[in-house]
Amino acid sequence: MSELTLVSRNTVFGGHHERHSHHSRSTGTEMTFAVYLPPRALQGHAVPVLYWLSGLTCNDENFSTKAGAQRLAAEWGVALVMPDTSPRGADVPNDEAYDLGQGAGFYVNATQNPWAANYRMYDYVAHELPALVEAHFPVTQQRSIFGHSMGGHGALMVALKNPGRYAAVSAFAPIVNPTETPWGQKAFAAYLGDDSALWADYDSTLLVAAANHKLPILIDQGDADNFYPQQLQPQTFVAAARSAGFTVEFNLRPGYDHSYYFIASFIDSHFAFHADALGL
Amino acid sequence: MSELTLVSRNTVFGGHHERHSHHSRSTGTEMTFAVYLPPRALQGHAVPVLYWLSGLTCNDENFSTKAGAQRLAAEWGVALVMPDTSPRGADVPNDEAYDLGQGAGFYVNATQNPWAANYRMYDYVAHELPALVEAHFPVTQQRSIFGHSMGGHGALMVALKNPGRYAAVSAFAPIVNPTETPWGQKAFAAYLGDDSALWADYDSTLLVAAANHKLPILIDQGDADNFYPQQLQPQTFVAAARSAGFTVEFNLRPGYDHSYYFIASFIDSHFAFHADALGL
Repeated sequence: MSELTLVSRNTVFGGHHERHSHHSRSTGTEMTFAVYLPPRALQGHAVPVLYWLSGLTCNDENFSTKAGAQRLAAEWGVALVMPDTSPRGADVPNDEAYDLGQGAGFYVNATQNPWAANYRMYDYVAHELPALVEAHFPVTQQRSIFGHSMGGHGALMVALKNPGRYAAVSAFAPIVNPTETPWGQKAFAAYLGDDSALWADYDSTLLVAAANHKLPILIDQGDADNFYPQQLQPQTFVAAARSAGFTVEFNLRPGYDHSYYFIASFIDSHFAFHADALGL
Repeated sequence: MSELTLVSRNTVFGGHHERHSHHSRSTGTEMTFAVYLPPRALQGHAVPVLYWLSGLTCNDENFSTKAGAQRLAAEWGVALVMPDTSPRGADVPNDEAYDLGQGAGFYVNATQNPWAANYRMYDYVAHELPALVEAHFPVTQQRSIFGHSMGGHGALMVALKNPGRYAAVSAFAPIVNPTETPWGQKAFAAYLGDDSALWADYDSTLLVAAANHKLPILIDQGDADNFYPQQLQPQTFVAAARSAGFTVEFNLRPGYDHSYYFIASFIDSHFAFHADALGL
């Protein structure tokens, strides 16, 4: 188990917002993540963990500073964990485009060079990070997961691939069918090559149709989102999930775009959704 | 009256968060400010305006994205206006330091070269901007004002110098006695030269002692703030204000620092304070 180095700590809504760095065995790099410990955790109670996966270009700080989530985590008594979206560093492969390389890990385990050595974000967010969090912080093994855009893809995909690990999954403007949409096709071609079985194994719309387990799903999508519907086709996923017997709440929000202003506006209903699934 | 150019519009909590640019006659430059129009304003009702003045290094976006204020503005039915902290541009005088020049206007009318031509932020925030806002948006002439750090200085000073214009004033970690503390002394020496009467005219602790009017005052200060107490001496102001007969609520918040995490944690109580003063 790797050691954590405390990067910063801020008091927020009576809890502690902390950034930690550590050496990741998944990525072979130093990774930084944020964790918010609500007042209930500081008072000595173990609390459930809600994982947030961010979108393209983000690190752990975007959601931390812009979503207004700590207020709700404090109220509900849940911890928040916010990882980075890729390995980073001068020695880590990168690309000039915003949608490939650093800041754009797509939560997959890359098989292709030059990415394969470090871009193992699936292992990191699905396995290494939860084990690290559960070893170091006052949390239970109750987990739930949500995310935005590329991170919405990550949340849905990770939840669907790990039966029983997450109480629920929700997403804001998620990429749901990356094998059929441009961002996903570009990233999967680079990271996974031409192995269509590997692509399918990270596509939520294909995964949900074949899932042998169920968990509650909530998706919000703004109808003024510049990336909707070309990159984001939530209805495709919702139809597949409902056909497979999942309970899905889907809200198309008039006038809302792809920004954190959209996320902040509806974050309260996502917390209520996860809290219900966690039995809070 | 100058024309406004819409820079961006985001839907947030059912209202519109807009950024506008315009030519300012105060600064002689193009200025950008943000305004949040709550759902009540979009429904055709004129609403009061709460002005936010930001601190060193900020522009209109810091408070807009990090404070969680639109949620409360929507609930209370008030508009928010968030100006920049200085004139900006390649032709505008600047300094390499973060605490002088662009991003550090200190809300004064500079009298010294090279600052005097553009650094007229007092005229801008106290007069030009409110007139512009009241001409272009569905707002009443009811105003209240708050701010952070350098902007807390700005809010207190502008409110004290303009009897009857603001229903109330509040501040997070404000500079209250700039004639006696390092940031203020450096900026005032540069912008105002050695005219001690001019310095005094922008110092809230001196202004409050001489004020011939009253308005409610709320101040929050974190006790883990790196700038407290050297730069920030709120108790000096609170004592002077109470001696002068003002009603002041002062909260020293254990564990909180100078960041927007502190502001977000207590922004709700500042809205409740201003709403009460505005009769909402």
